[in-house]
Amino acid sequence: MRYCVIMCGGVGTRFWPFSRQSMPKQFLDFFGTGRSLLQMTVDRISPVVNPENIILVTNREYYKLIREQLPEVKESNILLEPARRNTAPCICWAAKHIYAMDPEAVIVTLPSDHLVLKEDSFRKSIEEGFEFVENGNRLLTLGIKPTGPNTGYGYIQEGEVEKNYPGIYKVKAFVEKPNLEMAELFVNSGEFFWNAGIFLWSVRAILEAFDKYSPEIAQTLGAPDGVYASKRERDFIDRHFPDCVNISIDYAIMEKAQNVFVKTVEFGWSDLGAWKALYEASPKNSEGNVTQKSKVLATDCSGSIFASESDKIIVAAGLRDYIVADTDKALLIYPLKEEQKIRNIVNELKDRFGEEYI
Amino acid sequence: MRYCVIMCGGVGTRFWPFSRQSMPKQFLDFFGTGRSLLQMTVDRISPVVNPENIILVTNREYYKLIREQLPEVKESNILLEPARRNTAPCICWAAKHIYAMDPEAVIVTLPSDHLVLKEDSFRKSIEEGFEFVENGNRLLTLGIKPTGPNTGYGYIQEGEVEKNYPGIYKVKAFVEKPNLEMAELFVNSGEFFWNAGIFLWSVRAILEAFDKYSPEIAQTLGAPDGVYASKRERDFIDRHFPDCVNISIDYAIMEKAQNVFVKTVEFGWSDLGAWKALYEASPKNSEGNVTQKSKVLATDCSGSIFASESDKIIVAAGLRDYIVADTDKALLIYPLKEEQKIRNIVNELKDRFGEEYI
Repeated sequence: MRYCVIMCGGVGTRFWPFSRQSMPKQFLDFFGTGRSLLQMTVDRISPVVNPENIILVTNREYYKLIREQLPEVKESNILLEPARRNTAPCICWAAKHIYAMDPEAVIVTLPSDHLVLKEDSFRKSIEEGFEFVENGNRLLTLGIKPTGPNTGYGYIQEGEVEKNYPGIYKVKAFVEKPNLEMAELFVNSGEFFWNAGIFLWSVRAILEAFDKYSPEIAQTLGAPDGVYASKRERDFIDRHFPDCVNISIDYAIMEKAQNVFVKTVEFGWSDLGAWKALYEASPKNSEGNVTQKSKVLATDCSGSIFASESDKIIVAAGLRDYIVADTDKALLIYPLKEEQKIRNIVNELKDRFGEEYI
Repeated sequence: MRYCVIMCGGVGTRFWPFSRQSMPKQFLDFFGTGRSLLQMTVDRISPVVNPENIILVTNREYYKLIREQLPEVKESNILLEPARRNTAPCICWAAKHIYAMDPEAVIVTLPSDHLVLKEDSFRKSIEEGFEFVENGNRLLTLGIKPTGPNTGYGYIQEGEVEKNYPGIYKVKAFVEKPNLEMAELFVNSGEFFWNAGIFLWSVRAILEAFDKYSPEIAQTLGAPDGVYASKRERDFIDRHFPDCVNISIDYAIMEKAQNVFVKTVEFGWSDLGAWKALYEASPKNSEGNVTQKSKVLATDCSGSIFASESDKIIVAAGLRDYIVADTDKALLIYPLKEEQKIRNIVNELKDRFGEEYI
């Protein structure tokens, strides 16, 4: 059967003050549609994967948020990590959990905080990906056709096209976030695609890959038969999961395995990695301003994003390329092009004013 | 006896979103000291005028605010205007009210929303002013020694010095807000002083002046003996006060009367007329920023004022000479030098989003 694993335990402060440790980005209704990014992720995949087979892996801390936002999800489909260990242990656990229920399963693994504009095209790609991994011991990642030399993404270089699977290539290399010059070369070459962190594989293939390339994780999470998908799973995980190394699936598996493929796709994707990405993904008015859910009266402002948690009015003038983000805890008025400094600021705030603002 | 009349019925949106129709400036704790401007006004005058003799004139709409902020004031000392008619009718009513209790009274009339930094010096000036108006049929106004060519104030030109009263002069002229060139001439001449709207007179002198220069107000508010300062006063006022012309005391009396004097004073005064005045009256950090009651982390900001109603954190960068004012209803991010546009914006907001934000 087809399964979906949604990873929704991440924490991030790049959208501070909107995203906070207690309310990470995936739980936010970013676009004012009434649905959080996580809810939109579930909505998006549900026509392709039976909702009964959608597994959420998150941090224990977010259990309540998950229950509030996704009351329809079965309790046994929520896997609660007792510690943050990046994506590899998370994916390995989910695979072992699914394997215990269905050793023939195929899995699509999704981040919970990305934007997809063309949902039909997304689902078609996932369907095609499933078909590919159902027919062999293959690890498939989706590669997004770049729309520009973005330096905020990792890139995947395509190798030979796979016979009978147009649009699917052997992966030649994974490349970390490049500088602008490199990114331009990548995009112009036509061989490089953005690494979206969306993976498809059979449960057998990914567990075999863990055994081979990350045996320490496979062993740490190696439970006697009958533990996974049983009442004993939680206790086992609470005791052993924290012992896993903290490592991403890219480092642990994808960059090492030989049977890695990339399916090149286009479906209006953004990782919404920070304000600039949100700005670019959002509709703009004639002055190039984005107004997230806000009543805004902007005079002589351009290239700016205005976001408020409440329905307050924002009156602004003379701002060029600014982030204006207002919550009940904090107000951020910051140049978009300096947003990488926000992370440091959040740390400074923590030191000066305490955890409550973070 | 000495009386004080505090005019506290004004409404203004120049400090929007802080001041609103439902919460005008005089009721705000502007400096985060725990006392509103009105409370500070009462505190300031109380050592000079018996609190029993402090009369508040305000709009009916603000009765609750007055009771909350000044619970110690006697009910009969609160005069509630049924309509807004500027300062002349307000002053005339208060005088008639006081005359009914004490025809020998002298009165200092104060605005409720100004700042005075040197309170001892202020009280000394008021004492000296009382002595002056206790000895004759004279209308006295205080003239603030200018600290610069401010174009936001009206000016008073001094004439001949009054014998035996150093620092008190006949008024040669009242001058409306000048342009910058004129203001510079005024200040350099040494003959011009800011009109602070602080007046002293005997109750006989001001009522005589109303009879002479504004007989229509005197007649409209002319009640049979025994009405003022009685239970019948309120009903009389409710019926007749709205018929008064809407006119300031300057136009109605001061610019016409011949017995008008100015006492020149220096006591660290500002009318806090708008954000710029508040900025100038407030302590600044080394970057020249003012942080009103706010937790602010400002990088590369200067000449700006940050004000928040709540204890939220404000993080800002790259702002020069800005107002950042945040309330639960609205957020204003506006260049200080364009603050005169705020009034129009508030009107536009009213049209677009309704009264609730104003």
